[in-house]
Amino acid sequence: MEETFVPFRGIKNDLQGRFMCYKQDWIGGFNAGFRILAPTTYIFFASAIPVISFGEQLERDTDGVLTAVQTLASTALCGLIHSVLGGQPLLILGVAEPTVIMYTFMFNFAKSRPDLGSSLFLAWSAWYRLLTLRFKSDLGGVCLWTAAFLFLLAILGACSIINRFTRIAGELFGLLIAMLFMQEAIRGLINEFNVPERANPASAEFQPSWRFGNGMFALVLSFGLLLTALRSRKARSWRYGSGWLRSFIADYGVPLMVLLWTAVSYIPAGSVPKGIPRRLSSPNPWSPGAYENWTDMLDVPIMYIIGAFIPATMIAVLYYFDHSVASQLAQQKEFNLRKPPSFHYDLLLLGFMVILCGLIGIPPSNGVIPQSPMHTKSLATLKHQILRNQLVATARSCITKKSSMGQLYESIKEAYQQMQTPLVHQESSRGLKELKESTIRLTSSMESMNAAIDESVFDVEKEINDILPIEVKEQRVSNLLQSLMVGGCIAAMPFLKTIPTSVLCGYFAFMAIENLPGNQFWERILLIFTAPSKRYKVLEESHTTYIETVPFTRIAAFTIFQTVYLIVCFGITWIPIAGVLFPLMIMLLVPVRQYILPKFFKTAHLQDLDAAEYEEVPATPRGDLGKTASFPDDGEILDGLITRSRGEIRCVCSPKTRSSTPPTGELANFQRSSSLPDRVYSPRIRALRGYHSPQGVDGKGPFSPAESNLSNGG
Amino acid sequence: MEETFVPFRGIKNDLQGRFMCYKQDWIGGFNAGFRILAPTTYIFFASAIPVISFGEQLERDTDGVLTAVQTLASTALCGLIHSVLGGQPLLILGVAEPTVIMYTFMFNFAKSRPDLGSSLFLAWSAWYRLLTLRFKSDLGGVCLWTAAFLFLLAILGACSIINRFTRIAGELFGLLIAMLFMQEAIRGLINEFNVPERANPASAEFQPSWRFGNGMFALVLSFGLLLTALRSRKARSWRYGSGWLRSFIADYGVPLMVLLWTAVSYIPAGSVPKGIPRRLSSPNPWSPGAYENWTDMLDVPIMYIIGAFIPATMIAVLYYFDHSVASQLAQQKEFNLRKPPSFHYDLLLLGFMVILCGLIGIPPSNGVIPQSPMHTKSLATLKHQILRNQLVATARSCITKKSSMGQLYESIKEAYQQMQTPLVHQESSRGLKELKESTIRLTSSMESMNAAIDESVFDVEKEINDILPIEVKEQRVSNLLQSLMVGGCIAAMPFLKTIPTSVLCGYFAFMAIENLPGNQFWERILLIFTAPSKRYKVLEESHTTYIETVPFTRIAAFTIFQTVYLIVCFGITWIPIAGVLFPLMIMLLVPVRQYILPKFFKTAHLQDLDAAEYEEVPATPRGDLGKTASFPDDGEILDGLITRSRGEIRCVCSPKTRSSTPPTGELANFQRSSSLPDRVYSPRIRALRGYHSPQGVDGKGPFSPAESNLSNGG
Repeated sequence: MEETFVPFRGIKNDLQGRFMCYKQDWIGGFNAGFRILAPTTYIFFASAIPVISFGEQLERDTDGVLTAVQTLASTALCGLIHSVLGGQPLLILGVAEPTVIMYTFMFNFAKSRPDLGSSLFLAWSAWYRLLTLRFKSDLGGVCLWTAAFLFLLAILGACSIINRFTRIAGELFGLLIAMLFMQEAIRGLINEFNVPERANPASAEFQPSWRFGNGMFALVLSFGLLLTALRSRKARSWRYGSGWLRSFIADYGVPLMVLLWTAVSYIPAGSVPKGIPRRLSSPNPWSPGAYENWTDMLDVPIMYIIGAFIPATMIAVLYYFDHSVASQLAQQKEFNLRKPPSFHYDLLLLGFMVILCGLIGIPPSNGVIPQSPMHTKSLATLKHQILRNQLVATARSCITKKSSMGQLYESIKEAYQQMQTPLVHQESSRGLKELKESTIRLTSSMESMNAAIDESVFDVEKEINDILPIEVKEQRVSNLLQSLMVGGCIAAMPFLKTIPTSVLCGYFAFMAIENLPGNQFWERILLIFTAPSKRYKVLEESHTTYIETVPFTRIAAFTIFQTVYLIVCFGITWIPIAGVLFPLMIMLLVPVRQYILPKFFKTAHLQDLDAAEYEEVPATPRGDLGKTASFPDDGEILDGLITRSRGEIRCVCSPKTRSSTPPTGELANFQRSSSLPDRVYSPRIRALRGYHSPQGVDGKGPFSPAESNLSNGG
Repeated sequence: MEETFVPFRGIKNDLQGRFMCYKQDWIGGFNAGFRILAPTTYIFFASAIPVISFGEQLERDTDGVLTAVQTLASTALCGLIHSVLGGQPLLILGVAEPTVIMYTFMFNFAKSRPDLGSSLFLAWSAWYRLLTLRFKSDLGGVCLWTAAFLFLLAILGACSIINRFTRIAGELFGLLIAMLFMQEAIRGLINEFNVPERANPASAEFQPSWRFGNGMFALVLSFGLLLTALRSRKARSWRYGSGWLRSFIADYGVPLMVLLWTAVSYIPAGSVPKGIPRRLSSPNPWSPGAYENWTDMLDVPIMYIIGAFIPATMIAVLYYFDHSVASQLAQQKEFNLRKPPSFHYDLLLLGFMVILCGLIGIPPSNGVIPQSPMHTKSLATLKHQILRNQLVATARSCITKKSSMGQLYESIKEAYQQMQTPLVHQESSRGLKELKESTIRLTSSMESMNAAIDESVFDVEKEINDILPIEVKEQRVSNLLQSLMVGGCIAAMPFLKTIPTSVLCGYFAFMAIENLPGNQFWERILLIFTAPSKRYKVLEESHTTYIETVPFTRIAAFTIFQTVYLIVCFGITWIPIAGVLFPLMIMLLVPVRQYILPKFFKTAHLQDLDAAEYEEVPATPRGDLGKTASFPDDGEILDGLITRSRGEIRCVCSPKTRSSTPPTGELANFQRSSSLPDRVYSPRIRALRGYHSPQGVDGKGPFSPAESNLSNGG
């Protein structure tokens, strides 16, 4: 995106682009048939469980004013609106941790003011007197202010400068969220040993003996969930069980484990009181009193409405940041998306949704990570299956007809083009270029292009797996359906209320830990603590460029600076009222990165330490071996590319295309002295990066970046 | 050992051999100075914790007749006797699981007989009327019968046929013990939820609410211990922390974790009753009533004394088997021991110790796995450190004197020979042969043998690390000291009683899991459940020969047979009184292996599936890379060789020396089709195996088995 600030231009461009493919978004989705349910349920579970957890957190932090019902309602409503009216249908919306934190700050502030009080908290935060249609001069309220800021940002085209928030800001924010998750988990577990607020301390389950038992049971349940969920995420690399089962556990492990540990929580019976373990407490949406807090519609003092400006700025910054980054991650160029992006229009729409949520009195939703990139990824798997099945069928029919390799290529090409979205004819031959090269290479080892082929020579499934480019089934149906399913959760509240709170504590800890791998800031912290004699292990794995180009002492200095900054941010969230200002610190990172850091670090080092792309240096050939020998199933193919839980695609790049800076770091010297074997690439990665080996039969020279499909794509 | 059955010949040979080096055993030990404390404390902790756990198990199973005091006393007493009078001082003695099981059977039998009763249990099991010196005609009792059998076996030279108990018997027994450990852990945890026998159910901690809390706390403590102990065992390969710290955690992780979780068990305070969590209950040895059960000295009916013949046979078989195998594992040829073995004499001595223990009324001890091979291993590390420090000092002084490579070699040779045990002059040049080759290879790349060398070319520490052969500090002091320390534990009983029983449950589970890796039976079970698409992963790691030579269906058939056999053995232990016969099933495996299995399996397949040696095929070069690049510290060098927790040394062998059967298995085909890179060996392994690469500068031909140091050794 180029940085232009002509008002409305961004929005206009977005609307034009998406309008052209709006109809196809629906047709394409419905054409996929029942298959669309796989990515839908996958995203539904990935989306619903955190939203329920955040509801539980809000319920505890806001004395029950906001509960899981409200967070689920917001997620469902905003998701529904976005899937129908939104620009980028790959973006998933939901109530996220920053919202919860800001709402908690606001609640505590409202509670501490006698003239506002917790009963006016929602009125203040939403200024939902609008709902009563009694327009008065005290226009304001946090949500309205927030929406106003978002409108301004969208209109001015602020999304084009989202790249100014470099990796340093994103990863610091990620680690801050992880710390807040972990804090929430620990706090929740300690609470299990105490009598909860708003509970009758005389009842049996709050006697010291049962409280002790409840706390210990909570430890068992939360650690059980944490450990099994972490294990289940790695199921794809398990050795046992069929590939289907392993994929299923890897994809649905977390909801399965929530189910499992909820079932375990019912094992103690007999003399154990009913309140042990404690479970999700949220009023059923249809029970009387659920909307009690809606009835207070008193006047919010004007001072607070103007003062709401401060938290509103913070929320707006957070939403702008989160929403745009989530959208960006869902549209990484490695996904080869064919339809245009839509950043500015989506931000504008978010503004309207914030007003709506504020008026109804529910916390607003925004674009969420990692669900959004997960969504794109699952749709890529879907598209891969559809394409492959079609092409394999075509190839098989050619082989039974005793066609030559040339004919086979023509048939596959035809079938492939038929399946392309009508919009993008000009690009449809992209994947086929590779198919042609692959077949040429194959035939050169056989007699001639015209000899009949049979399956003993040409492994159809494998060859087609190898040549298929990554493509994504871009449509609106999966997003719509998952929103409806989240909405359905509100009806399933009596069922959700069987989930023990301690299981959700375990889930918070899981989210904290799950977010760490792939975060370079975290990996640098680990690198500092790695014993010098073990640093070679980092070089054995895929690793980012900086490890080879930046001296270790500079890496350490940069990381220590970032850690101190992180601790300051975390400390700010502990300040009772000023804590609301913590997003300021994230914003401040933009000037710090641009003007202050270059004074202490070399530009080349900064570029590598704060690289925009997820460039990686490949590891020793072990990973490659696994790939070629195992004939992996669909999920594994994509997992090889999308290795990180946050859902980013990471390129494993050739040493030639890497940073032109010669390796100067101490670790690089270390590496040179060790006998690392030559780097090898899996055919899959090679195909994806358009990498042609110098010895290749295609007669071309060594790899040059201009040939790369990926650098043309996106 | 050749199989000869001339009476007394085995004992005579053993005594002659060990008598020659008896004095040196003591001098050598004391010469090592304070360094000897490292292996001593290492073995003390490895020995004491299981003995305490077995004491806790016996206490529960024998209604408190036998406790940790008795098991500790037996271990200390027998260890003391063996370290002074025993043949092989590397062998560690202790009360082991088979003893506990047999004693439990006998106790239950005695309790069920009204004319015997639990009060006569010890009298029956030991027939310790001898103690009262009232010799009568009813000579018998289980211990005396057992001792008589052991005498018979020792005199007839039965230890020479211990090899008839092939791998199939050893590993089946190992897995049976693991199952019994796991059963004990689960049973112990369930007990934590119930009111224990012999407790006052009216006291506060046995109320339902506190029992629930106690049980949950027990789950936390036992799983905490299990998971952290398993993690700490792998500390050596951690990336974080200094090498010293990692070695320390790997070596002392288990006692550290017992300490840690005992400390954690004290965290809940305040209103929690004192009895939560439950802790080790054993009378202090000095408190009145501790010897109550010694006062019953009534007559044991003659029928039972003759009937004691049956359990005695079983115990004798178990002891013969366990003691000999433990001794064998402590003296594997890869350890390059210089002093002679002593199997028959040690078995004879064991017989005397069984009588002694029976008379005092404590369960007897026998040679234990894995402590015995762990002991040898720790002494090898010690010897390695001593040798290296001396040789490095010598080399450094040569370098400062600007000596030539030839002079350096002579000085090192001299220093090395000075440090050899006087007994074994004829073998002392073994390690030096390699040193010479190594130096020749080095100088050929330099100008001449006579040029002065400096440390920039000749990395003293590394070169000497590479050439040092494995040698063991064979002496009696460490065994004596660790026995005394175990004896000291009896005095520390008030301290030991702070250990929660649930921590010991976790420790049982730890022992069960810790014994599995390296057990080929277990690894074959896992192989059966490995998805076909993931079997290549087994080939990527070090793996045993059978995987490449035996078809998968035959591996599966063999494993299923063994599993059924195991389940039958386990089932027998559940039969109330006949359970005592379970060792019969292990004995029965000898004829089954010799006469029945060859009818169903090809001899070549059986040889590979039931191989006597721990021959291994090396993995892809990743492991090698790590070894060369990291300059590992002492512990890691040996860990590279002694990879398994049971303490066996495993040879990573070259494909040429492996089984002459050409690879025929399905997995081998699988491997050939995948693009496994050429096998590479680390210099360390190569040096140890006397492997000379065909391209070596030493001008020798490719590796032939006759050149191997290891095949000459032991």
